[in-house]
Parts: sequence; C-alpha cells; structure tokens
Amino acid sequence: MTRRIRRLGSGALAVGAAAILGAGLLAPSAALADVTDTGGAARHDDDRSQAVRDAIADGPAKNVILLIGDGMGDSEITIARNYAYGAAGMLPGIDALPLTGQYTTYSVHKDGDQKGKPDYVPDSAATGTAWATGTKSYDGAIGVDVDGNPHDSILELAKANGLRTGNVSTAEIQDATPAVQIAHVDQRKCYGPDSSVCGDDALEKGGLGSISEQLLNTRADVILGGGTASFEQTAKAGQWEGATLFEQATDRGYQVATTADQLKAVTKANQSSPLLGLFTPGNFPTRYSPSEATVGGANGAPIRCTANPSRLSTELSLASLTNKAIGLLDRSDSDKGFFLQVEGASIDKQDHSADACGQIGETIDLDEAVQAALEFAKKDGNTLVIVTADHAHTSQIVDDAPPATLSTALTTADGSVMKVAYGTAAAGGSQQHTGAQLRIAGYGPGAANVVGLTDQTDTFFTMSNALGLNRDAAALSAGASITLDDTKLTPGEKFSFTATGFNGDRQVSGLMESEPVELGAADVIDGAASYTATAPAEEGTHTLTVTGAQTDVAATLQFTVTADGVVVVPGDGSSDGDGDPDAAAAASGNTSGTLPWTGAEALPFLVIALLLVGIGGVMVLLRRRGLPMSN
Amino acid sequence: MTRRIRRLGSGALAVGAAAILGAGLLAPSAALADVTDTGGAARHDDDRSQAVRDAIADGPAKNVILLIGDGMGDSEITIARNYAYGAAGMLPGIDALPLTGQYTTYSVHKDGDQKGKPDYVPDSAATGTAWATGTKSYDGAIGVDVDGNPHDSILELAKANGLRTGNVSTAEIQDATPAVQIAHVDQRKCYGPDSSVCGDDALEKGGLGSISEQLLNTRADVILGGGTASFEQTAKAGQWEGATLFEQATDRGYQVATTADQLKAVTKANQSSPLLGLFTPGNFPTRYSPSEATVGGANGAPIRCTANPSRLSTELSLASLTNKAIGLLDRSDSDKGFFLQVEGASIDKQDHSADACGQIGETIDLDEAVQAALEFAKKDGNTLVIVTADHAHTSQIVDDAPPATLSTALTTADGSVMKVAYGTAAAGGSQQHTGAQLRIAGYGPGAANVVGLTDQTDTFFTMSNALGLNRDAAALSAGASITLDDTKLTPGEKFSFTATGFNGDRQVSGLMESEPVELGAADVIDGAASYTATAPAEEGTHTLTVTGAQTDVAATLQFTVTADGVVVVPGDGSSDGDGDPDAAAAASGNTSGTLPWTGAEALPFLVIALLLVGIGGVMVLLRRRGLPMSN
Repeated sequence: MTRRIRRLGSGALAVGAAAILGAGLLAPSAALADVTDTGGAARHDDDRSQAVRDAIADGPAKNVILLIGDGMGDSEITIARNYAYGAAGMLPGIDALPLTGQYTTYSVHKDGDQKGKPDYVPDSAATGTAWATGTKSYDGAIGVDVDGNPHDSILELAKANGLRTGNVSTAEIQDATPAVQIAHVDQRKCYGPDSSVCGDDALEKGGLGSISEQLLNTRADVILGGGTASFEQTAKAGQWEGATLFEQATDRGYQVATTADQLKAVTKANQSSPLLGLFTPGNFPTRYSPSEATVGGANGAPIRCTANPSRLSTELSLASLTNKAIGLLDRSDSDKGFFLQVEGASIDKQDHSADACGQIGETIDLDEAVQAALEFAKKDGNTLVIVTADHAHTSQIVDDAPPATLSTALTTADGSVMKVAYGTAAAGGSQQHTGAQLRIAGYGPGAANVVGLTDQTDTFFTMSNALGLNRDAAALSAGASITLDDTKLTPGEKFSFTATGFNGDRQVSGLMESEPVELGAADVIDGAASYTATAPAEEGTHTLTVTGAQTDVAATLQFTVTADGVVVVPGDGSSDGDGDPDAAAAASGNTSGTLPWTGAEALPFLVIALLLVGIGGVMVLLRRRGLPMSN
Repeated sequence: MTRRIRRLGSGALAVGAAAILGAGLLAPSAALADVTDTGGAARHDDDRSQAVRDAIADGPAKNVILLIGDGMGDSEITIARNYAYGAAGMLPGIDALPLTGQYTTYSVHKDGDQKGKPDYVPDSAATGTAWATGTKSYDGAIGVDVDGNPHDSILELAKANGLRTGNVSTAEIQDATPAVQIAHVDQRKCYGPDSSVCGDDALEKGGLGSISEQLLNTRADVILGGGTASFEQTAKAGQWEGATLFEQATDRGYQVATTADQLKAVTKANQSSPLLGLFTPGNFPTRYSPSEATVGGANGAPIRCTANPSRLSTELSLASLTNKAIGLLDRSDSDKGFFLQVEGASIDKQDHSADACGQIGETIDLDEAVQAALEFAKKDGNTLVIVTADHAHTSQIVDDAPPATLSTALTTADGSVMKVAYGTAAAGGSQQHTGAQLRIAGYGPGAANVVGLTDQTDTFFTMSNALGLNRDAAALSAGASITLDDTKLTPGEKFSFTATGFNGDRQVSGLMESEPVELGAADVIDGAASYTATAPAEEGTHTLTVTGAQTDVAATLQFTVTADGVVVVPGDGSSDGDGDPDAAAAASGNTSGTLPWTGAEALPFLVIALLLVGIGGVMVLLRRRGLPMSN
C-alpha cells in the first residue's frame, strides 16, 4: 500500500498540544501520519493503563476551575475539532483532559401533577443550578429548587470556606450560567431592577433582588463578562434606592472595569476590593462572523469562517479573561485556594441561530480558555479542572443537506467538506436544546469522579469534595460574635461595633433593642461586618443582634448604657426557641464568673447567663434553625 | 423543603443493576430518592477516585468481548435510558461499565482528489473496518483499506493466535458490522454469490468471494445471527461450484443451526466443527413494534411501545445468543481465550426509519447482552468488555415537535413525556448517520485505554494489545512445514500429506511439481491442512508446495518417487527470489548431513540443500514477501 505522508489538520495542532503536554494530559501520539495507514489514525496504539492510573490524583485540591461550553454537546465538539484541527486532530484544551465520562442533564417540571418529574430537555438555568447547588430544578430556575427555595452555590460555599471566587463568561453576566453561581431567583430573566419578570424576587417586593443586585451581594472576588446594561439601571428599593448598580458597586468597594485598559490596571482583587469587569452591554461579540444556514445549504459551496470585526480585543478574549482571573485569585502565600467558573456562552447562542461559524468560533474560544486553565493547573499541581457543557444542542454533522431544514457546508482544516445541519426549528426560528447525555472531562485532584456515568448534580459534589468544603453554611457562621469597639457607652453616644465569624453569610442585618432600632444590612467581608450606631438615650440594658442574611445565625450582645459609660456585658442565653444551647455554650467559651449587672429586667436572664457567659466574651450566639440555604 | 420519596424508573433498575454489582462495575448510589432534593439526583456524591483506580486492570486479558450498538450515539443511549429506566435510572449493562471515553468515527473518501481525506459521516462498513483492522477506510469498505487491500481483522488475528472466535449480530450476518470481522470486499452489499455488486471480489472473477463465502473461509468458531437468504445461494466457481453455501458449510464441517432447538442441541464449537447459526432470512425482527413518527407527532399524544409479536423467541435474543457464544467459546482448560463481537444492529436501522420504539427496544436488547457479557467477565476475572457504537445517528430529544420534520412523543418510565425528533430526512426517507464523537466504555484488563479521547482505530490496538496478539500473520505461519504420512511412494501411488504450522492462514493451496498438479485449496484447522494426492507416474524428484492463502508463506517438500518406493527428502533452498534464507534455514532446523538422492535434475539443488536441510526435517520454508494482510 502506498504511504502518503501528509500533515493532519492545521499547524496549530502541534503547537497547541505541545504547550500543555506532560503531567497526565493527553497528547496526540501521531501528529504526522497518513490516516489511511493501519494505525495511522490511531490517537494511541500503545497500552495507556498506567498513564490513566497516573492521571488519577486524590484530593483535596486547592483550586477548582470549572469551564462550561454552553450547548457544547459531543456534536458541537466534533464540529469544532473537524473545522479547526481536522478529524484526526485534537482540540488542544478540551481534548487534552485525561479523565472522561458522560453525565445526564435533565431538569424537572415545576408545576402541576408533573411537578418534580423529569423534563428531558433542560435549559441553562436548571443545568447550572444542578452543578452549582447539587439540586435538580426547573427550566428558568437560578439557584433555587423546584419549590423556589434558594440553595447556596458552590461559589458561595467556596467563599464561605475562605476561598477566593471568580465567575467569567462571554455572556452578559446575568445570563443563566454565570447567574447560578451568584444569585437565587425564580425566573432567569430577572436581570436588573428594571426587569419586569422579577416578581417577588424584586427588592421592592421584599425579595433578594435581581440577578445583578444579588451579584453585588454575593461579592465574588472576580466577575468578568458582559452585561453593563443591567448595571446602568437604578435600584428601586433598599439601601441604594435611586442609585445605579454601578454606583452601588463602587459604593460597596468594587473595582469597576469596563475597558481592557481598566482591566489591565487591576492588579489585585479580594473581598475588600472585588473586581467587577463588564465590557459589553450584553453578550460578547463572537470570534467569527455569522455563517448563513439555508434549506439545502449544505449541498452548496462550502465556506471558511471569517474573523468578526466586532470581536473584542484579544485582551478580552475568554482565554485572556481566564488568565486574568486566575492571576487575581491564586494565592501562593495561602493554603486557601479559589473556585473559578468560566463559561463559553455563545456556542449555545449561535447553535440556536443555526450559525455554524459562530458556534465553532466560540468552541475554539472556550478551548483556548481550557488551555489557559490547564497550563495553570499543570504548574500549580493542585488544581482540579473540569470541562463540560450544560446541555446538548441541535447541530449535527450529516452526509447531505436535509430537505426541509437549515444546513451549511464548511471547508475544514482537512480540506474536506463538512456539512452541518440544524433540524429542530424552522428557518428563522430558534433551534432547540436537545437531551442527550454529555461529555464531562477532568484533570487534577478529584478528576476521577467524572469517569463513568454521572449526573450533572454529581459535579457539585465532585468539586466541593475536592475542595474539602464544609457545605453547611450555618455551621460556618457558628462562631459569629459581636465586639464593641468602644468600652464605655453613655446615652446618645455614637459607637461602633463589629460582627465577626459570619463566614457562612454574605450580608448581615443589625438590630438594637429593646427600643427596636434597625441598623440595616451590611456586607460581610472576610467574615466580618462593621456597624456604627447611636447608643440609646435611655440608661439601662440593651441588646445588639446581628443576623446572617443567608444562614439566619444570630449573634447577640447585651450592653448597658449608664451616665458613667460603664459597659456591662452579660450573656443572654435565651433564644427564639430552637437555638442550640450547647453550641451557644461552646461559642461563649466560658461558663462561669460573675459580671456587673444593672437593671431589674435583666434578672431573669442571670441564672442562664451564669452558665453561658465568658468574662471577656461579649456575645451569645443564637443558632436558629437555618433556612434551607445550606446544602 | 418537603421531601417526597418516590421510586425512580421501573423496578427493573434495582434488579438489573443488582445482578452485576461489584468487581468495579458502576452501581446507582441512590435507587430511591427524590431527584429534586439536593443530592437526590446524584449518581454518586462521594469521592470515587479509588474506585476508578481499582477499575484499571492491566492486561493481558484472556478474552475480549466487543459489543457494538449500531448507530448508538449518546442521544440513542439517553433515549433508551429515559424510556426504560427513567432519566435518573441506569441501563444496567451499558451504564455499568466503569471506564469511559469518547472516540472519533470519521471515514475517508475513496476516490478522486479527496481520496484519503476525512469523510465526516461514516457508515458501518468503514467504522467496523476501523476497529476490526486498525485502518481507516471508505464507506462501504469491508475489511479493506482505501486502496482495496485486505487487512486481517482482529477476529482473524485472534484465531491466528490460537484463540477461539465468535461473531454475533441481530442483523443478517453479511451486514457491515459482522462482515468486517470475517470478510474483505470492496462493496458491503456483496452478500452472496448472487449479489450483483461483487465485481472483482466474486469467486468467478478470481476474487475472494462474497461475504458469505468468505465467512466460511474465515471459519470463526461461532457465528450467530440472521442471513440465511445468502446461504441458500449457489457458488458460481471454486471447489463448491453448484452447491448452496449451506451445503458447502456442512461439507466443510460446520454445524448448521437455523432454529432455537437446533441451537440448543449444539454443545461445543471449535475449528473442527464450527457453529453457523442463522435464524432469519435477513435481519432479526425487533423487540418492539414500530412507532410511527409524523410531522408534529411529538406534540401529540404520547405512546408506550408494544411488544413485537414477530420477535424471535427469547432463546434467540441477543443476550441469549451472547450467552450461548460465551459458553461455547470459553475454555477453562486452556490458557487460550476468545474474541467475541456482538452487535445490536437495528438501533441504527430503526433510527433510519424514524422509529423511536424500534431503536429503544434494540438498545435495551443490546443492554441485556452487555449485562450477559459483564456477568461472565466478572466471574471470569480476566475478560475485557468494550461497549461502544459505530457512528452517531439522527434521533434527538427535543422540547417541541420540529415544524417540518418527523417526531414522536413517548411516555417514559418516569411517567413524563419524552419527545424524539428525526430531522435529517424527509418523511419516508432514510434518516442519516451523523458525525459526532461517541461514547466508548470498558471493563476489565486493558479497559483504561478507552478513557480520554481516542479514535475508532485505537480500539483495534486496545483489544489486540490486551490479548497480547501477534499481529503479524506471516510470522504466525513462519513455522509451517509439510509432513508425508507415507514413507514410501511408488509411481501412481495414492498418498496423503499434512501441512502444519499455518497459524496465520485460513486456507492453503497445494501444488505438486515438476509436472504441475494443482492440489487445490484446503481449510486450515488449528494450523493444519491435509491433502491426498497421487504420486507422479514418472520416477524422480518432485516438489510439494503448500502456500498460505492469507500470508503467502509457502512450505516446500521434495520427494523422490522410485519403483522401490524410497522417499527421499532433501530440502530445497531455492525461493521465488524474495524469500528469507535465514528464516528458511531456521525453519529447517538443521544445516548439515547428507541424504540419499537420485535424479540428475536434482543435482543443481544439492549444494544449497546441504546448507539448509535437516535430516528428519521434510520441508523448507519459503518466506515470500507478505501481502499486506497483516497489521
């Protein structure tokens, strides 16, 4: 048989793959070969048992990077590979992950007698909620279960465990996939204060607020994506009523970047100064200009995709943003790592539009982000990287243009013609998501958990197990306490106090009693929130209560106002009826000692107080029944 | 949140999965749970790194069972799982394999300037040729490369290495997937002697014969499937010209079974008495009666699939045939194992027909065969099981009936409605194969080689490496020799001789010279072929040459006919010009000694003969340049 040596795919194959070789990553075994030779098309012809064994690393992982190709089913992956690297080539990021499996993606129905039963074709909201919270929910649900109850996301839990967190997307950041990590709303289109669909989630209805407003509450260290439009809107209620969300962000300590130069200037991001980088009003422009699919199109002249002149600068490519986020989140000086989600959003969006070039370019963009993640993970040695999708989609590679539906012919890196068909909607309609199981792949500590058949909800456990996260947010706030900065309070004196140990919460609310004075909400930064207040005019014993907004854990401090300004701080062992006295006792640290005490109304508390209060301690922790916020 | 405990899927889940638990197989971690609870839908919420590590077993494997779901892409798997076990359920066979990956399936173009370039949507012939021979070929190719050259299949190589072999399908056995293991033709529809498309492959054109005729030549130990029609046809040339292929099979020692009872009566199968069990004229009837897909159908009333009254008895189900084959092939008394291919053929065929029930039933049938294979493998402890497909297909799970293409709504085991759409052909047309990468899964020694991204051709190496096969068929015949049973030959005497050591060949041809007498072809059984011949009337030295049909390795014996009947057997070191004298010398075993010798015409040979011939040896091996039959 004649041997015709020819190059496979584009030159990018060898370069791209070479950049990430080693450390258990997959590499092509035969970059140059005639695929028609026996073994010429084989990616491996040797035994790899030991290599696979070596790729299995036990946790814990310091960091997790989760990369999502929205709508990136096996068909979309294959289409992009064929186009950009040839059928025998490999996507240097996506295909390099050494451990692989399939997972199921179904959602559940929300209403009626079908409530809780599988919905076989999910959307990005339900699927994101699945890996973000470990909970199956309904299409449209952002971080809430089928009953509308919020569940902490893995990003929120990572933060509660002291990790840094990031959320990167080529979509508007309010879009479902990024939203599931930083918000909890019943309806995915509740983007900003002006959204008409927010219902009870709106601040003015007493809800948690729109996705954009909740994003500011969640306070990830790094947010990068599109979606400035919603941040130009004005809060309709709450502390920042009347201010735009951008103004609110600045007021709350965010570094706001809306250009590549501004982004470049950001050199650190943390809870004191988180980064909110939003570079487009809505979704990012795609890498390639759209291709047009027509009925019968795949049997016409094949095209090559062209660069989109509207594409953002490469400093704002998904790979660049991924690198930027990693650089800001990684702490070599700490044993605390980070959780980062990265989404290539528009694979899905262009698949909906029957735009083969669009979806291919976005898949390549994601692949480059995966390469960036793997490069870091390989150097770091302690990072779990997971690459998967949220749901399958319409595009299929076919032999001939289907007679009644849209299709496009493309010339690939092989110089062959690839015909891509879109058969789930009419021309002009939105092509549908599909329900097939998906590829999931991993690298690093804990990555073996993607092997075999899993469900999308498993991924929540894979990631949180690898990070060793405590998933009980209330327990993470169990050490909460209040400290008065001032040691003497006289009637009407301005004073400040700090609530610390609220690691399971993103906000707290403060209350001073007995004459009830709402002290408002405050952001929890590294577990702590600070308040200033005015001491009651009335002498006597008063109570400060700080309650975690997410865990409902409360810390209480009693203090006495006297003309002499003597602070008197007995503990208060009373609870709202379902507190945990043992936990309270443990938190108080000391159960003996006598304290100055004034005011007749305090006497009933004293017996319990003697059992519970520490001399130097100034708080009593009340552990109320947690809302179902913890997983 | 309210916990509503409900049963997932059908009761078959627990039963089926329980049958194959343990030994590294995957099991559901939560058969009973509310999927809407946090973790309720998770298949695993613990760390499985060690379990995955434990599932990696080094080779060699004694046995390999390869199970192919024809057209069984991830969509088809998901559709069957949803229907039969529910979205949160598991296919107890297919989903239980612990090691998983994806592989690429493209074929190559055959003609013109596209020759050898990827064809992104392959057929079952090219894809089967890929895993059977490790060679990418063109659509329609059965065991031949892009230039039409035959390549030994893994079944043929396994046989050459002394293993037993089996080939089971629900299709007519001439169909592409089973055919690639037992035939080499340019055009997949060359089923039998009456096929009009055989071209140069036809016996009467000097070719290797139709698929059915080559099947008899390949002489696997066990063949089970459909396809009697072609065996009713009559050979048009060769040794069995004028006889039906069934008559030929019987004449060549096959046990022929065409009913369940006849199959039941077969208790052993080997090279002396291989089993040819064919139970239908063409393809097997499907498990379920066809469902009708219509334009808009998925938005209509959902259906449940119904049993097909024409289905064969359960003794002839794919699982039963798999068990039968395993029982016949497995040798506890030998260290030689077996290679078995099992195909669930009609997933593809019903997908072509937009018949959701048809494809679901066939997937379940295959799954039951996988269960049977896993059950054996688990007991045996030394069997590699691989489950995959040949190419992706059309069916997709959608939210709504596409407006212009066929679809069907089904009520699943969940009690939910699943909508399945077929969008690549018009109503009445044949739905197309698609080009997406596919799931491949494995269990047992060498199974780790399916993890990550591989190509379909890798599977040939995965299996043959696991079995430790020598893939050089010519080397496997290198020890070939001829032995005369008679020690004295007189002119015109009938005599017999045996050619042994032809392990790399399935047939040999015999030639007596110098007056050339064709002794015809003979089947190689366990490496040996027997001949009877009539000694030449003329006294003097004559030559017997036996040549392997597949390897072209030749063994030669010189003998002398005398009136006294003295056998004289000097070696003949001459070759056809490209033999390997060293190999010949080694095969002859001895290079010194003098031998009786008569006949003046023998003198020129004597010098060489003295260097090459063993006293007791009776042959000289000529190793000619091998045809490209070996891999």
